[in-house]
Amino acid sequence: MKISVLGTGMVGRAHAVRLLGLGHEVVVGTQDVDKTMARTDKDAMGNEPFSVWHSEHSSLQVMTLAKASEWGEIVVNALSGYSALTALRPLSAQLSNKTLIDISNPLDFTKGMPPTLSVSNTDSLGEQIQKALPSVRVVKTLNTLNCDLQVNPKSLRNADHDVFMSGNDAAAKADVKEILKSYGWTNIIDLGDITTSRGTEMFLPLWLSLWGTLNSPSFNIKVIAD
Amino acid sequence: MKISVLGTGMVGRAHAVRLLGLGHEVVVGTQDVDKTMARTDKDAMGNEPFSVWHSEHSSLQVMTLAKASEWGEIVVNALSGYSALTALRPLSAQLSNKTLIDISNPLDFTKGMPPTLSVSNTDSLGEQIQKALPSVRVVKTLNTLNCDLQVNPKSLRNADHDVFMSGNDAAAKADVKEILKSYGWTNIIDLGDITTSRGTEMFLPLWLSLWGTLNSPSFNIKVIAD
Repeated sequence: MKISVLGTGMVGRAHAVRLLGLGHEVVVGTQDVDKTMARTDKDAMGNEPFSVWHSEHSSLQVMTLAKASEWGEIVVNALSGYSALTALRPLSAQLSNKTLIDISNPLDFTKGMPPTLSVSNTDSLGEQIQKALPSVRVVKTLNTLNCDLQVNPKSLRNADHDVFMSGNDAAAKADVKEILKSYGWTNIIDLGDITTSRGTEMFLPLWLSLWGTLNSPSFNIKVIAD
Repeated sequence: MKISVLGTGMVGRAHAVRLLGLGHEVVVGTQDVDKTMARTDKDAMGNEPFSVWHSEHSSLQVMTLAKASEWGEIVVNALSGYSALTALRPLSAQLSNKTLIDISNPLDFTKGMPPTLSVSNTDSLGEQIQKALPSVRVVKTLNTLNCDLQVNPKSLRNADHDVFMSGNDAAAKADVKEILKSYGWTNIIDLGDITTSRGTEMFLPLWLSLWGTLNSPSFNIKVIAD
């Protein structure tokens, strides 16, 4: 399948490499290809510049967001939550009728650490993206855990933990479920329509506290029920 | 130990009965004793009027919030999150230096279902209560799950799931940990200071979605880590 990954940060890189390894055709999308390739600094998380990373994964073509959105049959939104809505809004035509896997979280680092959410409680980034792009089939998923675990859940307790999914379109959710399964996910909980993104995005403050408590981002939660 | 439970709803009732069963001296506090006893309607959740419930638990003395706060060595805040801050603010003297176990969630039902949070993201009800009552040792806990499970965690998978704790005072957290253990809790995660209440209170929207998905409130989460 032709899958485009929008975003060149650690989340986008993790998905691009994993999808390539699974045999998909993959391209990476970024706002300005020349600027992205020209960057020489590590990012805020200490990740190497994209060009350095890309030199080790040169089979991945890098395109503008518009071209990558046009090219892919399925598109992954791995843009930073802070810029996702602005970046996606002009891509309505290119993304029309496609499944958009939205992994982004509306983290706002401008007020210091820990980050707050730029939208929450009565709305969510998932809903805002769906509202801005009504012809796109938005499925929010994977935003409740670290990107290495997102794409390799079996690396933790053989995937005996849960991932959530929110979206309005049943066919798109079926697409996403197949990709999640190919990543190794076995426990996939469909929470309902896109408004349930509020719950998974608002889980972030607890996730951040747990990261501090456990001193590692390599954890997830599992729902325990009878 | 003398433990006061503030609140006559299902959460307060569950804790009062459980604490009594564990051998503590327990009183229940309510804003207006006469009004509470005179109510004849079921509450919004379909629970029987307090007086009916109380007739089966008549060994539990019912007092005003002020008297109950004065009486108890440890006090449980099981008031509705919507009114908790207003109700607790005048009780600074009675609660001074005591451990206040805050179970309340800032759920706002005035905008319809599902409820939103009346405070979140940059603040929390736990923090607001601590700020309003600086001489009180506030410990937020148990607010991430159903009240029957709060007091009987072993009824679900022998308590193989997690409860969180947030607060500024180590001695108060030690008190709370003992009570949690007596309820049957084995996995108690100390998230840090009272600001980490944001995470557990903001978990509520995900909890509500899961309640809908599982069609039962009898579930909890467990943190899975290596």
